[in-house]
This record gives sequence, structure tokens and C-alpha cells, in this order.
Amino acid sequence: MAKEVDHIGILVSDLDEATKLYQDCFGARIEKTETLPERGVKATVLALERGTRLELLEPLPDTNMAKVLEKRGEGLHHITFEVDDIDSELSRLAEMGVELIDKKSRPGLEGMVGFIHPKSLRGVLIELCQKV
Amino acid sequence: MAKEVDHIGILVSDLDEATKLYQDCFGARIEKTETLPERGVKATVLALERGTRLELLEPLPDTNMAKVLEKRGEGLHHITFEVDDIDSELSRLAEMGVELIDKKSRPGLEGMVGFIHPKSLRGVLIELCQKV
Repeated sequence: MAKEVDHIGILVSDLDEATKLYQDCFGARIEKTETLPERGVKATVLALERGTRLELLEPLPDTNMAKVLEKRGEGLHHITFEVDDIDSELSRLAEMGVELIDKKSRPGLEGMVGFIHPKSLRGVLIELCQKV
Repeated sequence: MAKEVDHIGILVSDLDEATKLYQDCFGARIEKTETLPERGVKATVLALERGTRLELLEPLPDTNMAKVLEKRGEGLHHITFEVDDIDSELSRLAEMGVELIDKKSRPGLEGMVGFIHPKSLRGVLIELCQKV
């Protein structure tokens, strides 16, 4: 069961420009910027006034994410739901026949994460996360 | 300035099937279902445990949204930010050079809404809403 939307991931071609745009347009404030080589991105997490978060993702060169950007362009990429017990949720979904990208959780930006395949979720890439 | 993410819009081909899927996978509960001819959709609003909402959208036949579904397939469609004063936000954005789909707010599912063009926002379709 998902508690809430932890963040919305947005694929962009230029992290600095996109960060400034979302700050200027919506008053979003920067929480952090990190390079995540294992995910093939540099990410900036922005928070809106009441704390809802956007994760802007710029692909690193020669990564799978760079290919996704080239093919699909900028835009909404994934949504992340917070759960209490990620591995039991991933197991429950697998038993339901939902196709998982990550059968077991793995370390993410803030805790353990696991992705579900969009073809099982009406074209939406959903990440589950369990905070530590 | 945006207060928070009010909901995430997801385009689907079959509202009943998608609703059941998101209920079964994530424990989302139905808040309401409405047909919105002026937007060309039938919409079901689902809430996660702590209240974050997903808006599943099934295009009505022979609408622009039906063409969008045919062209792009199912998946993430838009995100909606809640604001205090929608018309002043739309004016401020227009003055910044952001391209708006709605120059003035209009009635939406729960209050006044206005869409911003994705080409001004790194490919993301963003709706502003002001609750009534």
C-alpha cells in the first residue's frame, strides 16, 4: 500500500536551466543536487511550499538515460510512492503478476528503492521508496 | 508560487481496469468519478493513504484527448499545482514569457484551473488550480 507521492521525476536536458525555471515559475526551493552514476543521472530535488518534491534528472553522457532523453525528449519521467516495507510490497506485486524492474529493493537517493515496469501500470513508471 | 502537488494526471485507455489496478497495487481509494465533456475525458480521482491524489483520465470518443492517447499511448499526462490566486499566477507567468494554454482560469473539477504549455516547462504539462 502506498502512503503518498514522495516525488515526481522529470527528465531534462539541462539541469541548471530547468532548476532556475522551476524556481522562478513555482517558487520551488533546492533541497539537494547529487550525481548518481548508477542511475545515469545528475539529480536536483526541489520542494514546493508545503514540501511536495520534484526530482529534475539530467542524463550523464553515454548512459541509458541519455538514450531515453534522445528518444522521448524532456518531460515527466516517473512518480515515486513512499511505502513502509518495500520488499514486502515488491513481493506482493510480483505475486499479483505485476512486472518489476527491481525484484529486490536497492539503495536510492534516500533509502531503499525499487522500480515497477510501466507496461504493468498503464504506461507509468512507478518507483517505490522506503525511507531510512 | 505553488503550494503543493494537488494531483498527478494519468491517461488510460480503460478507466475501470486502470482504477482496479491502482486500487489493487497501491491501496488507492476512489474519491470520485466524473465525465468532463469540455476536457474530453471521463476522470476518476484516487487518493493514496495520506491523501495524495491520482487522476485517471479516459478519453471520450472523437475528442482531442482520444487523439493524444492514440499518438502517445497511456502514461503520465500532467501534474497539477495548487496555488492561492490562480489569475495572478497566470499573469505573472505570462509576464515572464511562459506560454500559457489558458490565459485566464476556467472552471475545473474542483475550483478554477489553468494549463501552462509544456514547451515552456521542459516538456511537462502543468495545470494550476485554485480550490474554491
